[in-house]
Parts: sequence; C-alpha cells; structure tokens
Amino acid sequence: MDIYKEALELHKEFNGKLGVQSKVSLNTPNDLSLIYTPGVAEVSRAVANNQDDIYKYTMKSNTVAVISNGTAVLGLGNIGAHASLPVMEGKATIFKRFANVDAFPVCIDATDVDEFVNIVKKISVSFGAINLEDIAAPACFEIEKRLIEELDIPVFHDDQHGTAIALLGAFINALKLKNMKAQDAKVVLSGAGAAGITVAKILLQYGVKDIVVLDSKGILHPKRSDIVSNKFKLEIAKMTNPNGVTGDLSQAVIGADFFIGVSAPNILTADMVKSMAKDPVIFAMANPHPEILPDVALDAGAFIVGTGRSDFPNQINNALVFPGIFRAILDERIPKVTENMKIIAAEALADSVRELSPSNIIPSLFDEYVPFNIANAIKELNLKNAQN
Amino acid sequence: MDIYKEALELHKEFNGKLGVQSKVSLNTPNDLSLIYTPGVAEVSRAVANNQDDIYKYTMKSNTVAVISNGTAVLGLGNIGAHASLPVMEGKATIFKRFANVDAFPVCIDATDVDEFVNIVKKISVSFGAINLEDIAAPACFEIEKRLIEELDIPVFHDDQHGTAIALLGAFINALKLKNMKAQDAKVVLSGAGAAGITVAKILLQYGVKDIVVLDSKGILHPKRSDIVSNKFKLEIAKMTNPNGVTGDLSQAVIGADFFIGVSAPNILTADMVKSMAKDPVIFAMANPHPEILPDVALDAGAFIVGTGRSDFPNQINNALVFPGIFRAILDERIPKVTENMKIIAAEALADSVRELSPSNIIPSLFDEYVPFNIANAIKELNLKNAQN
Repeated sequence: MDIYKEALELHKEFNGKLGVQSKVSLNTPNDLSLIYTPGVAEVSRAVANNQDDIYKYTMKSNTVAVISNGTAVLGLGNIGAHASLPVMEGKATIFKRFANVDAFPVCIDATDVDEFVNIVKKISVSFGAINLEDIAAPACFEIEKRLIEELDIPVFHDDQHGTAIALLGAFINALKLKNMKAQDAKVVLSGAGAAGITVAKILLQYGVKDIVVLDSKGILHPKRSDIVSNKFKLEIAKMTNPNGVTGDLSQAVIGADFFIGVSAPNILTADMVKSMAKDPVIFAMANPHPEILPDVALDAGAFIVGTGRSDFPNQINNALVFPGIFRAILDERIPKVTENMKIIAAEALADSVRELSPSNIIPSLFDEYVPFNIANAIKELNLKNAQN
Repeated sequence: MDIYKEALELHKEFNGKLGVQSKVSLNTPNDLSLIYTPGVAEVSRAVANNQDDIYKYTMKSNTVAVISNGTAVLGLGNIGAHASLPVMEGKATIFKRFANVDAFPVCIDATDVDEFVNIVKKISVSFGAINLEDIAAPACFEIEKRLIEELDIPVFHDDQHGTAIALLGAFINALKLKNMKAQDAKVVLSGAGAAGITVAKILLQYGVKDIVVLDSKGILHPKRSDIVSNKFKLEIAKMTNPNGVTGDLSQAVIGADFFIGVSAPNILTADMVKSMAKDPVIFAMANPHPEILPDVALDAGAFIVGTGRSDFPNQINNALVFPGIFRAILDERIPKVTENMKIIAAEALADSVRELSPSNIIPSLFDEYVPFNIANAIKELNLKNAQN
C-alpha cells in the first residue's frame, strides 16, 4: 500500500488523530463537586479577582492553539481552513508526543488580516501560547507582527521560525564539518516566501555575510522592478546580495558553499551542484519533493545533503524545534520568543547530535532529548536575561 | 477542608482539568510520515476536494466546542471570559467522562452579539457541534437563534435546553408518582432568564396548561409595563398565566402542584409550601444555594424535593442530559436538535430510573446507562424522521 493510501486508511480508522483527556478523576459525587459545581465557582471567583490566577488553576498554562486559515498548507497552497485541519491535528499530536504540550487545532475561516487578528485575540483566553501555521506570505508577516504586539501571550509562526531554527542547526553542524566560519560562507537561498525570508534573516544574524536570495523569477536585488511593491522581499533584497549579482539560479550557485532551498521541486540540477565550491552543502527542503534528490546531489559531488523527508538521512524538520520552544515558553511564561532565543535553540539542536558526520548532522526526530535540550537552553537564557 | 479550598487545591495541583491526547501512535518515522508529511497531504487533498470528508478523516466528527463569553457564569454573573474557563473545562471533562465526546473550551472575549456570532462561525471548522454555555439572557437567545440558522453544525445552549430537559425528566416522574396528568398540573415557575423561559416552553409543549412564571419583580403577565421592552419575557407572558393572575411569589404558589425554581436562593418559605396543593413537588434549582433547602420543604409537607446539588437526593443536573444529546448528534450527524428530540430525551431520562420513589425520581449522574439511553432514544427518533 502506498503511503498516501495508508494515511487515508489510518485517518479514517481513528476519525482523525486528536482527542481530549481529563487530567482529574471523575468517579464520585465528591469529584464532581470539586471539578464542577459548587467547587469550580471558587476557582472562577479566584480568576475573576486576579486574572493572572488563570495560569495557576486552568489548562491555559499548558495549552497552545495551533492556528491556520489554510492559505498555504504544506506544498498544496491555498486549500482553505477545512482542508488544513488534518495538518493542524498532526501538529498537535507532535506537540503532545514530544513535549507533553496540550495543543489544539483552531482553523479560522478568514483571510482578511484585521478579521483574522481580531478573532485570534478574542479566542486566546484558553491558550498560553499561539502557534501560527500554514498562512501565506506576506499576510503571515503582518498577522504575526500584530499578534505579537497586541497579545499578552507569545506568538510563533512555525513555518518561519521553526524552519529557520532547524536549518540554522543543520548549518552550524555543516560549518563544523567543513571547518568554516559563518562569515566566510557563501550561501545561496532559493525561496523568498515566509520561510525563505526568515531563514535569510537568521543566517544574517548568525554572522553570514554573503547570502544571495532567489524567488521564482531569479536573484533578489533592490533594483528589480517587480519586487518594489513587496516590502518584505524588498527589505530582504537590501539586506542580502552584497556583491549585487543578478541572474538565475544557475548563475547564483557558481562557487557557493551552501545551497538552501525552501522553494520548489527539482530546480537544482547536478550541473549546478558541480559548479558550486569544493565540498558543497545542499539543504533541499521543498516538501515532499525536494529541490534535488539526495542521490543526484551526492553523485554530483555534494559533501552534505539534507532534506525535510524522513526517508533520507539528515531530516531537517521543524518538528525538531517547536516542541522544545513551546515547552520553554509555557514553563517559564516567556512573553516573547526573541532572536537570541532562536539562535540559542539552533545551537542546542546542533549540540544534540552525538556522532557528527556528513550523513548525521541533525538529530533524529525521535531523540527524546532534543526538545528538552532546546527548552533548557531557552530557559537558561531567559534566566540570564532576567538577572541582567 | 471545605469544598472551595479543596477545589482550589485540586485545580492547582493538576493545572486545570483538561489536556489533549493522541489517538494514534507516533513512535517511528513511518508513523510520522502517515500522520504528518507527506501522508497527511493526501488527507488534506481529500478534504479540499470534498469538504464533507472532514467528518471521515478528522477529529471534527467527535469534537464539540464548549463556548462562553462569561456573561452569566454559574450564579456568579458577568465575570468575564477568563473567569469562565474553569467552568468550561469542567464541562469538557464531563463530556469526555460520560459520553466519550472530545469537548474543548473556547472562551470568547466578546459580548457584542454580531461579533460573537461571527467569531463562532469562523472558528467552527474543527468542531462537529457547538455547546453554548453561561451566556446572559437575552443575548443568548439571539446568539443561539442566529448560530442555528447560519451554521451547518448543531448548536445547543445547555443552560436553556439541558436544564429544561433535566427538569422535564424529573417532572415526568413526579407526575407518575402523583398519578397526575400534565394538563392537570398547576405549575409555578420562578425565574425568567435563559433557563426559566426555556423550561416554560418545554412544559407547555409537553402539555402543561397552567403555568405561572415569575421574575424578580413578580408574576409575568402581558400588561406589566416593565416587560414590554423584553420581547422574550413578553412572549412567555403571553403563552402562560391562563387565568391572568398578578402578584408576588407568595400569591402565585397558593394551590400550586409544582414549584420550579431557576432563580435565587431562599425565596420559597415554609409557609409558601404549606399554601400549595396537597403533596406539592418542589424543584429548587438555584445553584449552589437553592430556593428552599430540602429539609425545610419536606418539613413543610413537600412530597418530592429536587435540587441541582449532589449532596441532596434527586439531583436534577443538566450533566445528566448533554452528554447523551451530543453523543447522538455527533454519531448521526443530526443537523439540529428539534423540540421532539428534547421531549424524547426527557422521557428517556425519566425511564432510566429503576426504582421510582419520591427520593429517587432522577437517575444518578454516575449511572453510565443514562447518556446512552438518551442518545439511543434520539437516534431512534432521528431514524424514524428520516424514514417518514
């Protein structure tokens, strides 16, 4: 049976993947009078008197909303809020399994930014944090920015930051194996959507100097007339491409140390890999069909190849990252995921690899230490920040 | 330790009451590729192609939103969305425990009817049904009406209908013990909020002819100038009080067979009970402090006394009702809870009592058959309706 058919069967058998569970026992009238009336009235009174007590006495303290409007689901595009539910449910099961976070899918059938932001704000009561997911660029940037400003709980757009942190983790280990420093690396980044723009920013912040970003029309530079109207692409064009090169992907990759793809299937050819610098590193993240298949890249001389897929070595997946991030922000009630926290998380991810080698630059998703290493690193940084 | 203190301790120990659980195993890369990428893409494609497949492949089929804006929480009044969360969480644990329904609290920080309705509609994607809770009258009537009209999933305001069905179940069994017919019963109903108005309507529908409804200012009749502006009270005033009586509670109860209170603590005195007809029945539902304490009512000659409390006999609680109602509507995808379904549910509830007596007119909340009796009765009615 192929994987797609098997997935349908599994989802049908269990009617989806997520349910709720009671954390308390409910077997006697006394139990009921504690968790419901009359006892619960005292809990409601406590929260009414001091709203902050909601963290002490309710599920809010361990609950995350996984929120999408279905405008950019996986590689499937704008398939709508309903069709996004299976993905959000999957995400919630990963949260529970890897970090014991109680995550719940909230699929919002609204694409207008103002309306979407307002709805998230008004329903945020039950949640200790918000995970945004599969929302198309550029709306996702505006939505994330406004929610971070206007909500009192942390907001994290996983397609941007989860992906960027996972890639930075792999990048850090690839640098170690290449014995190269970030500031000396020449990086080509294919993809200027939500993930691409955020990956570029985190690499710049980590110290990379030479990044060339491409969208489907070629290399981004500030004079390209078609990006003037897209403030996010224009901003990243100004921050990257220090040598002002122009052209397409085949021109961009010549002499590059790294190719990072968060774009489209099969756009990187063996000839392009051959034109890169010695021992090139390829992170081909398009899902489920990467920019180049690992075998093709390795045959063409690639030193390290990573993809988003579980059936090849070096699976660079944001599921390595978000469970640990949210574990930390819930445990410590961290109000905002800072840029430094993202870098620290990537370093903790990179350090979690035990026997570093070109085919093992990133830990397994089933390495149960990873979320806790990431969470602990963020908690330590948070503690240090609080002391300063 | 008193119950309030114990309730606070319990809620603090477990950080609330509700969590999520995965219904599928997630221990291998293959598991992950089925529940998340790439397998889940096929599930999303299926729903994108046929929206109805969301019931086949996702949690929607067994998931209920427990929705409040906190404007009428228990007897505590308008304490806000945050302070309503402990109650909604308790409700969700009852759903899970008694009918294996996956219910999730959605506390919406909005009191404007249009805004509230719009938010519920836009977030209804993940849910197979909506349970409205603790929303103040008269907004709750308008909200429920509009959501029933505008949504494609069933909507049930438990404070109205759950309470009404539970009371009708107790009423049916009290009639049996009194050997009286509904049309011969003289009923006084104290309380004209969400519950009171709906209890009056279900009793009328069940065949009761003589109902007198009171609010805090006295007996409702269509000429009372202060109710002209409240269309819901005016409507119920026109449907009840066939003899056009006026006055306060002490006047209303003279010669009555039934007192039903969904109002305020300690408003029914022993002298009032003594003024009722022979073998009077008292359902004093104000929570947690009933309209009269059972001992006082029994000493004054009451034949049957029921309350909402678990520490007295005859606990008439909507938790007897809503688990079974939602079990049926989820299992059969019943689009609307009809008036006939409510009556059938009350009859199934009444029939669930095994040894009927004045101190045992309603089953225990922990009688596990009750939700299934109610669900089965509704399913049979639904099947019969479908065949006609």
